[in-house]
Amino acid sequence: MSSLLGIFLYLFLLLSSISAKNREYKWRVEYMHWCPDGVDGVVISINGQFPGPTIRAIVGDTIFVHLTNNLPTEGLVIHWHGISQIGTPWADGAALISQCPINPGETFLYKFKVDKAGTYFYHGHYGMQRSAGLYGSLIVEDEKEAFHYDEEFNLLLSDWWHKSSHDQQIDLSSKPFRWIGEPHTLLMNGRGQFNCSLAAQFSKLPITQCKLRGDEQYAPQIFKVHPSKTYRLRVASTTALASLNLAIEGHKMMVVEADGNYIQPFFVENMDIYSGESYSILFKTDQDPSNNYWISISVRGREPKTPQGLTILNYIPNFASKIPNSPPPLAPLWNDYNYSKAFSNKIFGLMGLSPKPPTRQNRRILLLNTQNRIEGYIRWSINNISLVFPTTPYLGSIKHGINNAFDTKSPPNTFSKNYNIMKPPPNPNSTYGNRIYMLKFNTTIDIILQNANALGENVSEIHPWHLHGHNFWVLGYGDGKFDHKKDVEKFNLKNPPLRNTVVIFPYGWTAIRFVANNPGVWAFHCHIEPHLHLGMGVVFAEGVHLVKNMPNEALNCGLTRKMFVKDKH
Amino acid sequence: MSSLLGIFLYLFLLLSSISAKNREYKWRVEYMHWCPDGVDGVVISINGQFPGPTIRAIVGDTIFVHLTNNLPTEGLVIHWHGISQIGTPWADGAALISQCPINPGETFLYKFKVDKAGTYFYHGHYGMQRSAGLYGSLIVEDEKEAFHYDEEFNLLLSDWWHKSSHDQQIDLSSKPFRWIGEPHTLLMNGRGQFNCSLAAQFSKLPITQCKLRGDEQYAPQIFKVHPSKTYRLRVASTTALASLNLAIEGHKMMVVEADGNYIQPFFVENMDIYSGESYSILFKTDQDPSNNYWISISVRGREPKTPQGLTILNYIPNFASKIPNSPPPLAPLWNDYNYSKAFSNKIFGLMGLSPKPPTRQNRRILLLNTQNRIEGYIRWSINNISLVFPTTPYLGSIKHGINNAFDTKSPPNTFSKNYNIMKPPPNPNSTYGNRIYMLKFNTTIDIILQNANALGENVSEIHPWHLHGHNFWVLGYGDGKFDHKKDVEKFNLKNPPLRNTVVIFPYGWTAIRFVANNPGVWAFHCHIEPHLHLGMGVVFAEGVHLVKNMPNEALNCGLTRKMFVKDKH
Repeated sequence: MSSLLGIFLYLFLLLSSISAKNREYKWRVEYMHWCPDGVDGVVISINGQFPGPTIRAIVGDTIFVHLTNNLPTEGLVIHWHGISQIGTPWADGAALISQCPINPGETFLYKFKVDKAGTYFYHGHYGMQRSAGLYGSLIVEDEKEAFHYDEEFNLLLSDWWHKSSHDQQIDLSSKPFRWIGEPHTLLMNGRGQFNCSLAAQFSKLPITQCKLRGDEQYAPQIFKVHPSKTYRLRVASTTALASLNLAIEGHKMMVVEADGNYIQPFFVENMDIYSGESYSILFKTDQDPSNNYWISISVRGREPKTPQGLTILNYIPNFASKIPNSPPPLAPLWNDYNYSKAFSNKIFGLMGLSPKPPTRQNRRILLLNTQNRIEGYIRWSINNISLVFPTTPYLGSIKHGINNAFDTKSPPNTFSKNYNIMKPPPNPNSTYGNRIYMLKFNTTIDIILQNANALGENVSEIHPWHLHGHNFWVLGYGDGKFDHKKDVEKFNLKNPPLRNTVVIFPYGWTAIRFVANNPGVWAFHCHIEPHLHLGMGVVFAEGVHLVKNMPNEALNCGLTRKMFVKDKH
Repeated sequence: MSSLLGIFLYLFLLLSSISAKNREYKWRVEYMHWCPDGVDGVVISINGQFPGPTIRAIVGDTIFVHLTNNLPTEGLVIHWHGISQIGTPWADGAALISQCPINPGETFLYKFKVDKAGTYFYHGHYGMQRSAGLYGSLIVEDEKEAFHYDEEFNLLLSDWWHKSSHDQQIDLSSKPFRWIGEPHTLLMNGRGQFNCSLAAQFSKLPITQCKLRGDEQYAPQIFKVHPSKTYRLRVASTTALASLNLAIEGHKMMVVEADGNYIQPFFVENMDIYSGESYSILFKTDQDPSNNYWISISVRGREPKTPQGLTILNYIPNFASKIPNSPPPLAPLWNDYNYSKAFSNKIFGLMGLSPKPPTRQNRRILLLNTQNRIEGYIRWSINNISLVFPTTPYLGSIKHGINNAFDTKSPPNTFSKNYNIMKPPPNPNSTYGNRIYMLKFNTTIDIILQNANALGENVSEIHPWHLHGHNFWVLGYGDGKFDHKKDVEKFNLKNPPLRNTVVIFPYGWTAIRFVANNPGVWAFHCHIEPHLHLGMGVVFAEGVHLVKNMPNEALNCGLTRKMFVKDKH
């Protein structure tokens, strides 16, 4: 009986490995004039496209991306957001963490397995190249999906400025500090409208109605649907700054996937999505088929100075250009954080399909998020250290035992018990640092992200934190300062959702758990691009001695490069 | 007798080497907000300064510059314009020719000897970083100067746009082509005025008089002089585009040095200076000492759309702010090329101090300058090849015998005899290429730069060509197509000036001669930054087998890096 089972299992694995494909791409990355919102601009394009090409694969496939850097003077990497990179930590695409930036004119091979179905994306992870438009979708289909739908759409959300991210980056690193301001436009699949609105007729603002042929780079991508069907909308946010709220006018949305993980389905009228997150939602085209309907995205968590992003759900056979009868959905108030928390608290792991967390942690790390000044520059710090990257990627220097590549002192495991999170930092000074957390392999780690007041009085912002190389369980959210007794007791160990990105709310904390079982070096950072650029992140290393077959191409800079050179002489 | 001479010579050399100094600098290169012309902008700064610090050395000194790249994502090099780099070709600072770009966060040591007195400068030589403001002066003093003066001033000329060079570079490489346009402002030692004029009271244009405290970043640097003295003005042009004409109101200028070479002194009222050139001029403060006088620079060779650059020659004890009595000097008509040619033709080597050229050449290379289209992109080509750089610097790949680093076919030694230089190219298509001219060591090379009509009818522009690693003799200029018989006979072999930069006039040719006696790989290119960026250059290699002790740090990219890595395994 058990041998028969064994044969079945063997056959199943054999079939899976036969069906697994190699998917090979040649990508050329370059700056290009583009018009994402009707205003002439410049993007980082891939093969002449913005956003970059969508990768579609089946779970188990291996992706080969031969990435050629055609930027004139800048290095380049691409991070495959949400992919665990088990066995290939050098392919994670985090500059100076997992690899050296690819030099102009050179080609680097990203080769990795997509071992988990889900809605993912990829993006630049060096300087602020993500903000420049270096991103695209990465969809991993299941051989057989757990839920039924007739068709699917893909929706990659981003925000856009009329100032180049190259200049933004200089502004952020200037003394006096120059903030980048709110985005000019929200983009859906790289398309938005700045000088006109699809819904001008409903607006009280003096904005003109868009007159579009449909072939403009900034014309919205219309979502064509048949009545009485079920659609899957895969949505991911790679915004540089904006937290968003998504709605499909008149259509209830059933949320079924978060960051490539099954969750317990629940219905909403609209949903928050933070930078770094992805979801799948199902909706039925059960509304009056003689109308079209709005799909809208709106800014949350910051005073919205950016117009709604809009496109149209087009019931066939209506004209695609037929404007819906009603104004676009009204988003919840930008600072109604209870609304946001209520949404986050609706997300649970799907019993049976979502693995449960270990019941005990081996180590708990508290990470206090503060805004600071260092030598007059504005920075973000974690436990009073503002992250700067070494010139030698951690993965290479740790693997090869190079001692002087970074500060090997342990970063603080916690912060002062007396720290008043409700007030600006009493000592606003912080230090630059590149220390990293060394995690014991295969141990269970709890992280408590603790939010606090920023430099100004009565300011505390939302930060969506993203972990590379892992999914983590979200054990809970709370207001105020984390309490080691009271709050731990409330942890959800029964059905916490698995995620790779989680938010901390203003003046609140968020608790996550993960198992440090993926040999490599992994960034954990605020996914708001300017916040990361200003130091808001930490780095974890685990089981690096187990990493095998690291390609030299990932190590050709800093001290790992010199090591090879020295070996020769 | 001869042994006594030998002892003297020994003592002299000993004393020289004792007096020779090591001059050591630590430079940090970063983007910085700056206001070069009254409009907020961004420059590439060195140690927080724009322009970069002036290096002053004595002939025979050795310069050590520890250059740290603090740009966020871009590589970096610095070229020491006019320094021959004998024995240190890897310190020439030409990206992907003599070295790999320095990675962000890394430090490269430029160590080289300044073996010839003169007025030089340094600048970025990767992408268009020179246009971004990465430049400064490099003055090499003689132990005893050949001419008398009481004091000296230094004047580094440049041009400035309100669009970043990062964006300009993208524009130039776009399809359709986007030209950068004329500079907004001319800068003198990094200072100019855009929204006001020092000479508004004399202008018919509706421009306001500058009201300056003097401590603004864009306030002119006033040149303070005592009456009845002799001053040396060291002037160099690192403009991205503009050819300039310099004048000191009411003061005759005696030109005594060109590109670090003594020339036969001559007097002018005003003088042309092209990008890449430097001069020393002497002038006497022999005018009415109760007045101040204008120092002006004006655009030549292109229809001037940029206001004159101005500063004040301030006779002590007049107020520095005292505006001169008369309007600033009127420049010669921008397209009066006969005027320009007359100036160039006044420059001769100084008998006795300027070495004479070999009387015969071993090889003559004709370089036809054409504007072309390649796959719809606008490019410049030399003998129908538009230069693109390999990813491995030539110096390293040739020295180490790496075969596949670049196209090893010889580039054409000449162009078609039937080519009509008066018309747009009959076949506007050209090809990208990275071939280089291999010069036999210690041979004498003649180069004939042949200008031609650009893509548009009746357009032919001035191009100042700069040679790395060498001075060359300017044997002559001519109109029309170079004639191998007639024109050669007119070559000036008696007292041609030595230079490192020389201009070709519209529809004309220029002949130069040099001895290929400096082991290394040397760029020869149009010094107009966008022209070089669009392929207007060639590369010479000579005696590379004689290059010794090349530091690994110059080779840490492309195939030279891989070579070391592969050796290990």
